[in-house]
Amino acid sequence: MAASAAGKGILLKADAIAATFREEVKQSLAKCVRPPKLVGILATSSAPSKFYADFTQKQCDTLGFEFELRKTGAAASSDLAEGEGVEQAIIDANEDDSVHGIMVYFPIFGPQQDSYLQQVVSPLKDVEGLHFKFHYNLYHNIRFIEPKSLISSVLPSPDPSIPIDGEEPPSGTVKSIIPCTPLAVVKCMEYIGVYNRLLPYGDRAYGKTVTVINRSEVVGRPLAALLANDGARVFSVDIDSVQEYTKRPRVAADAAEPSRRYHPRHVVHPSNLTLEECLAHSDVVVSAVPNTQYKVKTAWLKDGCVCVNVAADKNFEVDVRDKASMYIPAVGKVTILMLLRNL
Amino acid sequence: MAASAAGKGILLKADAIAATFREEVKQSLAKCVRPPKLVGILATSSAPSKFYADFTQKQCDTLGFEFELRKTGAAASSDLAEGEGVEQAIIDANEDDSVHGIMVYFPIFGPQQDSYLQQVVSPLKDVEGLHFKFHYNLYHNIRFIEPKSLISSVLPSPDPSIPIDGEEPPSGTVKSIIPCTPLAVVKCMEYIGVYNRLLPYGDRAYGKTVTVINRSEVVGRPLAALLANDGARVFSVDIDSVQEYTKRPRVAADAAEPSRRYHPRHVVHPSNLTLEECLAHSDVVVSAVPNTQYKVKTAWLKDGCVCVNVAADKNFEVDVRDKASMYIPAVGKVTILMLLRNL
Repeated sequence: MAASAAGKGILLKADAIAATFREEVKQSLAKCVRPPKLVGILATSSAPSKFYADFTQKQCDTLGFEFELRKTGAAASSDLAEGEGVEQAIIDANEDDSVHGIMVYFPIFGPQQDSYLQQVVSPLKDVEGLHFKFHYNLYHNIRFIEPKSLISSVLPSPDPSIPIDGEEPPSGTVKSIIPCTPLAVVKCMEYIGVYNRLLPYGDRAYGKTVTVINRSEVVGRPLAALLANDGARVFSVDIDSVQEYTKRPRVAADAAEPSRRYHPRHVVHPSNLTLEECLAHSDVVVSAVPNTQYKVKTAWLKDGCVCVNVAADKNFEVDVRDKASMYIPAVGKVTILMLLRNL
Repeated sequence: MAASAAGKGILLKADAIAATFREEVKQSLAKCVRPPKLVGILATSSAPSKFYADFTQKQCDTLGFEFELRKTGAAASSDLAEGEGVEQAIIDANEDDSVHGIMVYFPIFGPQQDSYLQQVVSPLKDVEGLHFKFHYNLYHNIRFIEPKSLISSVLPSPDPSIPIDGEEPPSGTVKSIIPCTPLAVVKCMEYIGVYNRLLPYGDRAYGKTVTVINRSEVVGRPLAALLANDGARVFSVDIDSVQEYTKRPRVAADAAEPSRRYHPRHVVHPSNLTLEECLAHSDVVVSAVPNTQYKVKTAWLKDGCVCVNVAADKNFEVDVRDKASMYIPAVGKVTILMLLRNL
């Protein structure tokens, strides 16, 4: 792709990327006897959450999913507190056989209590992939799981008899859901060719260096792990430290000690590099800092890199495309397609 | 109990309270064929964590438990980063049949990633009660569970056929583990008579008003819920809000609609009271604010109240006993006994 006449990088809106999945989702939906039903749970008066709920409704209408918004707490009545009744609403939706997927509009109470609520959503209906099980599988590069493991609290070990280098799950297994936002970023990487289709599936980010700014459990850490599991060298940068995530190679099986064969996945090392040094090396920069003031310095970017903003606020300076060959300002539209795909 | 000659309230060290459980734990232990084995996992260079690990060792030695400290990360070598290898150490201990209980010395990475690690510890070996399942049961006042629910990720509903008003679990069920620190505070309340033994079990805090300062998922919120489940009126005070936790009464079963019978447990309401107003009403004040600077104003306390400091730093002013009839400066020694009792 060429830069614009002004010599600037391409501004890539998420719509184009989302469009490629719309057809796939429609085709899967056509195979269903009845459209699956997604329940959204809105428990606060937050305008962005309300906006996102409306957006979910529109996307479901367009694609043909059934959507029902259930309001509780301050979203239902000014007499109720923010978040009041949300746990019971989740439990009711878990137990309601007519509901196939549940989406809760966070933030509600703050990171700790919200993380508690994410565990209340049944893993069988968790279209966002926020349940601990899915994070565990992601960190351990366990891509396919036996369906029964979804209702067990025993954590799966990587099973060497289940190959992980195919796109489709081997017989008797299903794909482990990947948290929607990190998955949306990976889908953007595939779309723009950072993931190289000539490389074997599962290693398509090999050779690429990526900086992920922010290490939250919701976006930054799973995204860094996911990219490293796919072969990238990743710098995970947080306010107080820099870590390097790289992929541990599969060691050839020793016939005498087959347990010596490692399950391939990322490993984490501390790094002494500064953010400036990380950016100077990085083919891709993803920023997810929930702070309006935070900006990645354009001057520090590598010429021709790809920049992706995942935060609600813009984390890149207005001149980012003076250095970046491509800039994706938001991934929300891809995220929601991932969610409906999971549904 | 009488105030001291100086007219001050009693300073109650946790040792006396811990001593009452030491005998109980020793007796249970005497029934074991082999002493159960607790594994401590120390992954940081933090001095308080090291101190607490030594303290666990001493307590286990005194009581006759087997204790093994497994060091990883910065605790094992200066070449390793803080927390490096801790997840694998937990998984190894989960899979090691010779290990009966696991204790991880937090904090390691910060609240979010630490909360992830707490879910990695098998609920079958989680002596601290930090797994999500135990928090869920506590919040829902589910006191006894079927053992198989420990290995299922399906959350239990309150089962009306399981009575919850006895101290011992009905046949076929086991006690759901209660997070150690909140449980230690309850045991202190029992010891000093805030819990009234003449009241029916499960409602022994009825009539008492308690303020719990801090609403973290580790201590403040479960403690407030636990006290309210036992009948207390609880003010849960956090930096940005005050909530009131009260117990929802069990509604008499309607023969036609037995499902109308509510499972008794706390409900949460927003409150317009200030901290000063809460303290003026409170028979008991528990503070768990992780901040050296934070102090509860003695002037705001109700005359003759009971004050309990759960934070590492002292959250009460030096003259607290000018108003408080009793002051418990730390509960750590009771907490560790609760943990060994769970083991």
